[in-house]
Amino acid sequence: MAIVVQKYGGSSVADVERIGMVADRVAARKASGRDVVVVVSAMGDTTDELLALARRISPNPSRRELDMLLSAGERIAMALLSMALNERGVPAVSFTGSQSGIITSDAHTNARIVEVRPFRVQDELRRGRVVIVAGYQGVSYKREVTTLGRGGSDTTAVALAAALEAEACEIYSDVAGVFSADPRVVPEARRLAEISYEEMQELAEAGARVLNAQAVEFAKDRGIALYARAATGDDGETVVRRHAPRAPGRVVGVASETGLVLLRLAGGDLGELVSLLERLDTRAAGAKQLRFDGPLGASLVLSLENLHDFAALRAEIQADVPGVSVLEGVGAVSAIGAGINASYHNVREAVRLVSEADTNVLGVATSSFRISLLLEEAKVEDAVRRLHRGMVGDA
Amino acid sequence: MAIVVQKYGGSSVADVERIGMVADRVAARKASGRDVVVVVSAMGDTTDELLALARRISPNPSRRELDMLLSAGERIAMALLSMALNERGVPAVSFTGSQSGIITSDAHTNARIVEVRPFRVQDELRRGRVVIVAGYQGVSYKREVTTLGRGGSDTTAVALAAALEAEACEIYSDVAGVFSADPRVVPEARRLAEISYEEMQELAEAGARVLNAQAVEFAKDRGIALYARAATGDDGETVVRRHAPRAPGRVVGVASETGLVLLRLAGGDLGELVSLLERLDTRAAGAKQLRFDGPLGASLVLSLENLHDFAALRAEIQADVPGVSVLEGVGAVSAIGAGINASYHNVREAVRLVSEADTNVLGVATSSFRISLLLEEAKVEDAVRRLHRGMVGDA
Repeated sequence: MAIVVQKYGGSSVADVERIGMVADRVAARKASGRDVVVVVSAMGDTTDELLALARRISPNPSRRELDMLLSAGERIAMALLSMALNERGVPAVSFTGSQSGIITSDAHTNARIVEVRPFRVQDELRRGRVVIVAGYQGVSYKREVTTLGRGGSDTTAVALAAALEAEACEIYSDVAGVFSADPRVVPEARRLAEISYEEMQELAEAGARVLNAQAVEFAKDRGIALYARAATGDDGETVVRRHAPRAPGRVVGVASETGLVLLRLAGGDLGELVSLLERLDTRAAGAKQLRFDGPLGASLVLSLENLHDFAALRAEIQADVPGVSVLEGVGAVSAIGAGINASYHNVREAVRLVSEADTNVLGVATSSFRISLLLEEAKVEDAVRRLHRGMVGDA
Repeated sequence: MAIVVQKYGGSSVADVERIGMVADRVAARKASGRDVVVVVSAMGDTTDELLALARRISPNPSRRELDMLLSAGERIAMALLSMALNERGVPAVSFTGSQSGIITSDAHTNARIVEVRPFRVQDELRRGRVVIVAGYQGVSYKREVTTLGRGGSDTTAVALAAALEAEACEIYSDVAGVFSADPRVVPEARRLAEISYEEMQELAEAGARVLNAQAVEFAKDRGIALYARAATGDDGETVVRRHAPRAPGRVVGVASETGLVLLRLAGGDLGELVSLLERLDTRAAGAKQLRFDGPLGASLVLSLENLHDFAALRAEIQADVPGVSVLEGVGAVSAIGAGINASYHNVREAVRLVSEADTNVLGVATSSFRISLLLEEAKVEDAVRRLHRGMVGDA
């Protein structure tokens, strides 16, 4: 029987009522004649609440113990969803990441899935059960519990879909698909009917929350189509799949990030750069790193999101690398589209538009899919609106 | 190096501050030159809160999924305690029941420990770390997560102490030792300096909360001394160990239970009794069963405590076994002491004392360590006070 993998985010299972609505949707999919595997995140703000508890105990908790703590969240959500399905007469069983065979690297709090051995999931599907799997978590080769970082449940879903040779991977959230910008910031943003893996990956890396970048990379490698939908209400969707390239240079969307830290080496001393990168390798393995070329020499941007102990790291860096300057409160805005930097026109236009929001552009980075600009965090939303109005084409 | 196993109950780790106090106590024990293994329960009312969530979703949740849900509680507590120790400069690592090698039967929500394979615990002790272990949970031979029923963390501690050949097993709770009755009910109750395994086991089975009966049985089988202490404040303790028998017939304490259900077969039809027991075997495996001889024929008492779905079971029993009567709202009071039923004097005296509280004694059961009487739940506290005043000897 064809297999469908569904993933539901934390806001979709935030309380008993919403867990019931998800159970209804899963039951309907099962009744349509598919084997269904459901990947769930922790309920609502559980992960943030557990993290806050940990910080009250230790400003710099062990990442191994953080994983032990945080992985409890999905366990609660999956057991409750399984009970809700059984209550509806749909036989279901829940499995932890470890029981589902999600094998990861041992990089605690930001592990990568290296292999999936879904034998128990397959056994239960053959018995006609819906299988509920804890998202965001796995087990390392050292038999330690690991977590995959923010958005990791998407990656769990895609990796399982690949290992199970699923017909489709459906990602449910509180947004009905992928939009050309965050509709809360840009009211005229429109839903993209379809988008390529590469564009989706760049949008996600540039800060779009709807799909996780590593998940999209996985889907691309295995050729799995992703369907991004709302868990309730709106029936619209965005399909992410391999397809004919768009007109080069066309901009499909705009995304942004805040909570960034800019590390600048004004002098460009090679020894200092090496020290800095070594320090980051051991201490900031969980942090996304972007390299920017700015008007002030080599610079490097860290996202604080997965970096659980920046205060300590900042002190270490400033002690070891005296030439570095550390600027917090930085944001980034990006325009995404295949071949966007084929001509200088787009880069020049992006800089011009963002400068109108904030004359102090701190850095520019380009790739064949993306133009990103660094600026003061407080100016990000205005810059997003200007970029969207000036650069995103009509449907 | 000598190993000490400590167990802390849910009220001892109910919030961040109390977790810090436990960490201080563990750190002091480690500094005294012992290898320390700490077994923790879930924080405060976590288990009851998770159970309430489950009941909102399903009146009769799958016991397998209940175990998945409830085992999340200890995982949170153990990770936070490990962080608190690391924060104090004491290297610590936390393990789930499964990682600690706690192998159990597959009787979900009421599993029994069948074997302990503490290889990872021993490895970490050799590295000089304090090892924190999730109480109350294990893994079955079928690789399913199981829980041990109420008080199961005590059992985890004793089983680990036995497997590790520990020097001592210290059980910390909010009470400083074992008392001759619950001091909240009987203000003149006194702490017992020491008590035999058999008496402790009977006290626990009769409803004393301070130590779990299966844990005491484990300790007896392996000859491990148990030290019951308060997690904070009072330095008093009770030692449970093998020792010279007391004067036969002396009563060491009084205990009670409420929330019982009395099943009565007035006619004494053997076929009906067999039907009833079969039904209970499959559906009430988690419920403690006591057999009583009462004035009204054969009867059987179930505790609702571990019975997650009595309403359904009641309907089934009444459909299958028409001759049975089901009486809820029943309590039991017990007097405990080695050789207590050597003469009829003690039984007669117990019945007389309890009759003064409730003329309607529903049943009497005796063993060489215990005299138990069934009565209306509402009369239990008064009966406990009368039994204690009339039968428990002075220090």
